[in-house]
Order: sequence, then C-alpha cells, then structure tokens
Amino acid sequence: VELANMNRLFFRPEQSGLSKVEASLQTLRDINPDVEFEIFNMNITTSENYDVLLERIRQGGLQEKRVDLVLSCVDNYAARMTINQACNELGQIWLESGVSENAVSGHIQTMIPGRYACFECAPPAVVAGGGDENAIKREGVCAASLPTTMGITAGLLAQATLKHLLKFGTVSNFLGYDALGDYFPSYSMTPNPECGNRHCRLRQQEWAEHPEEMMRKYNLLEETEKKDDSNAELHPDNEWGIVIEDSDGCAASEEEEEKEEVVDTKGASVEELMASLKSLQ
Amino acid sequence: VELANMNRLFFRPEQSGLSKVEASLQTLRDINPDVEFEIFNMNITTSENYDVLLERIRQGGLQEKRVDLVLSCVDNYAARMTINQACNELGQIWLESGVSENAVSGHIQTMIPGRYACFECAPPAVVAGGGDENAIKREGVCAASLPTTMGITAGLLAQATLKHLLKFGTVSNFLGYDALGDYFPSYSMTPNPECGNRHCRLRQQEWAEHPEEMMRKYNLLEETEKKDDSNAELHPDNEWGIVIEDSDGCAASEEEEEKEEVVDTKGASVEELMASLKSLQ
Repeated sequence: VELANMNRLFFRPEQSGLSKVEASLQTLRDINPDVEFEIFNMNITTSENYDVLLERIRQGGLQEKRVDLVLSCVDNYAARMTINQACNELGQIWLESGVSENAVSGHIQTMIPGRYACFECAPPAVVAGGGDENAIKREGVCAASLPTTMGITAGLLAQATLKHLLKFGTVSNFLGYDALGDYFPSYSMTPNPECGNRHCRLRQQEWAEHPEEMMRKYNLLEETEKKDDSNAELHPDNEWGIVIEDSDGCAASEEEEEKEEVVDTKGASVEELMASLKSLQ
Repeated sequence: VELANMNRLFFRPEQSGLSKVEASLQTLRDINPDVEFEIFNMNITTSENYDVLLERIRQGGLQEKRVDLVLSCVDNYAARMTINQACNELGQIWLESGVSENAVSGHIQTMIPGRYACFECAPPAVVAGGGDENAIKREGVCAASLPTTMGITAGLLAQATLKHLLKFGTVSNFLGYDALGDYFPSYSMTPNPECGNRHCRLRQQEWAEHPEEMMRKYNLLEETEKKDDSNAELHPDNEWGIVIEDSDGCAASEEEEEKEEVVDTKGASVEELMASLKSLQ
C-alpha cells in the first residue's frame, strides 16, 4: 500500500507500507471478526505458485472441500490467463472483473467452463497474431483510477456472488458499466469451438454431451428442481441459532397475522367475482 | 449503530452504541484525515431544525458560501419532502437516492428545481388522495437490507456527484437499478405544472422565462462555453502544489514523447490516402 492508493478510499494512511493483502485482511477482520481468512501474497503466474492456486481451489473450502466460487480481481492479462487455465482445468466457476485504464468503465463476467466463452476464447488481436502479450499493457500509460467506478464494479461483483451462491435473480454472463453514459450492457458469449485452451474445449464437449449432468455438476439447478419436497422446513437445524427479534416492528407477531382478512366467496372463482363486480357497475 | 447494522459492512462491531452520524465521522476521518467534517444528528422535519438545514445549505460551503451540492440518503417520505422543500425554496441542486424495502432495487435522481420533476411533482397515491402519509411505511413490514445493493446505489450516487461537480459524462436525471435482472433504467421526468409545491412552480416559471440565465445560475454550462480561451493553462496557480511524480512509468517522459511517429503525407488528405491504399490491394 502506497499513499498514492489512498484515492481508493479503502486503504487507510496508517496502512501505508503494508502489502495490499495484509491491509485488506486488517480491514475485513475489523468489519467481521467471525470470518476465517487465509491470505497468500504471491504471483500466481509462476509454475510453483500455480500449483498452490490449484490446490487451494481444490481444498480451500470448508472441511477441506473445493471452494464455492473464485473471484478474480487481478489487474493484468497474465494473471487472468492463469486463473482461466486453473478454472478450466478444474471445471470451477469463477467471476472475472475489471476496470478500464481510463477509469470510467468496468465489467464483471461469469465464467462457467465450457458453457460460456472462457478468457482465452476471444484473445486480444496482438496475442492471436502471435505477438508479445506484454504489448497489451502500453508502456508509459498511467492507468487512471476512480474509487466510484471501482466501488460500483466491486459491488456488482459481490451482488453476482450472492445471486449465484444463494440462487436468486439472474446472474448475467457479461455485465458492463459505462460511467460516462450510465450504460450497462449485458449479454452472453458462447465458447469458441476452436479455443486455444485444451481444457476449455474438453469442458465444451462435456456440456454438449451431458448438458443435464453438467447443470448438476456446476450446481446450476433451481432449488425447487433439486428437492423432492419444496414445502419442507427451510432451515430445520438452524445451525447459527438465528432468532427473529422484535425491534422496529420487524418481527412477525401472531396478533398481526390473525388480522388478515378472510372473505367467504361461497366457492366463487376470481373470474366469477370479477363478472359479478362488473354487473354492479 | 446496533449490531443488527453490521450487515452493511460499513459500521464496525466496536461502534455499536454510537450514533450513525458519529460512527460515520470516525470511519471517514480514518480514510481521509484532511477533510473537514461538520455533523448534525437531528430530525430535519421539525420547523426549528428545518431552519438549521436551510442555513447550512446557504452557508455551509467553503468561506461560508452556499454548498455545492446536497446528497439525500434519508430513508423516509417526510425527510425527503423536507429536503425537497428546502432545495426548491433555495434553488439548490440535490441528488436523491434510495433502496427498496425488498433490498433488490435502488435508484438515484438528479433534482434541478424547476427543470426536472421535484419529489412532490408525482406524489404517492395515498398522499394525492388526501390520505395519511404515514400509510406509506407499512406497519409490521421489516425492510430487508443488502450491503451490495446499498453499496452499488451509493457508488452510483458518488459517481453522479463527481460527474456533476467535475463536469464529465452525462448525469442522468433518473437512474434505477434492478439487482435481480441487472437492469438499469434511465430517463428524464419533466416537472408537473400543477405541482403542489409553490417553490417548484416558481422555479419552473424561471426556467420557462430565462432558460439561459438558469443554465448559468445552476452552473450547468460546459466548461468551454464559460471560458473565453479554452486553451488557457488549466491550473495556473496549482493551489494544492500537485506535482507529477515518476513511479510505475506514470510520468510523461520527454524521451517517449519524441518517439511519436511523424509521417510525411505530402499534403494528401486521409481520403486520398485511403484511395491510394485501396488501389494497391
């Protein structure tokens, strides 16, 4: 963390000198001391560290299981390619995110290996033409940075995470943000059958051959499709001991529930009631 | 601040018991100790406090001048009506914001008195029908709250603030956010000529009679429209002593500037060059 990073309004002046990983850990722990964090301050693009990345995706979850989701917040092509490679190899869903060099646009992208385009499916022209990928980051160009664009993009990323994991709403494949025009394009990108990534092509084949199995494997079925009885009690064990407290009128009181009006329609359907209503007008 | 507010990921557990105003001041000071804050923890809807609100809008800026902008982040109808009244009365631009009770949508709105619809131009049905405004907040309904939806809405509000004050991009009159569908509607609302707010009607008349004067009064002209010489040095006095430092290749080096390729087209226009190029193919 350098003083120049203070414009992000996330790091604090006294954190200057810490690594960004350490400073983030501090801030996140202050916000929620009950979360277990595990940090690695390393370059994932070396082959040694790549193995650590693979291993932690495979066993970094609760009870040493696979993690639920990988969020990518890296700022360069090589790191994105590395995460893309790992997730294609493991068949791991990940969310990619980024903010443009001019700081006035951003995007998030849901990566489901073999189902949507992977990061390598549509390579930059310079890479596709066999050029040097380092040419992507132009020398001498100073990337601008706005905390607003970063905050909104990070917010959209966190929202997509909640929607994906808790299964509500629609998780867009691609969602862009153009700050100047308040424009938010959203669309889907099918994978490239000739993608340069072998694992992407393998995952595509799996989706083509066993689409239903893949929906299950990637946990993409609606809750109701998976359960035999959707009327079952939602949280029978209440692992976290959550209780509904009465404050600000936020508890469901039985008294109020009883107030609900019950009208005896004498067996008439809504259509019949509407017809009677009409005849009275 | 109550422990129940921790889900917003803004307040910290040890701030429990502080007022939200005090806790916010703490956090904002930690982020930027160089900003001068002035806090009031009060209900603006009483007539005594309303006078304080008016006075601070008029003289709460630098050198006891009028503030540049009012941001509304209140959570109820009466408080919004109060800010609307004050800003219509003073001809003060303000940004309104809100998040829905179900926590999956939000909006921001740019309020320019007399130019766009004010908060009273389209009253809720219950108020328009002469009913009790307290019926708007339904009894026993517990408002849900997601830090993601709040964070994104706050981010859009801050972005609109930067765009408005620093004059870049387009500041939408209304920008909505539907989290479930990743949908962001944006449109303009003209004021209601029969608005119940007398000051809104007065401001509408001013805009109808002196549109150009109003553009100047509300500081809505483009920078170039205001200045005689747009080539003048942008910051001749450099009040904050800002210098461009050389780090991460972020300084403009003269050496690199010289590298720029210059091609002698022998006076040919782009069209002529394109034509020659075509004839070679």
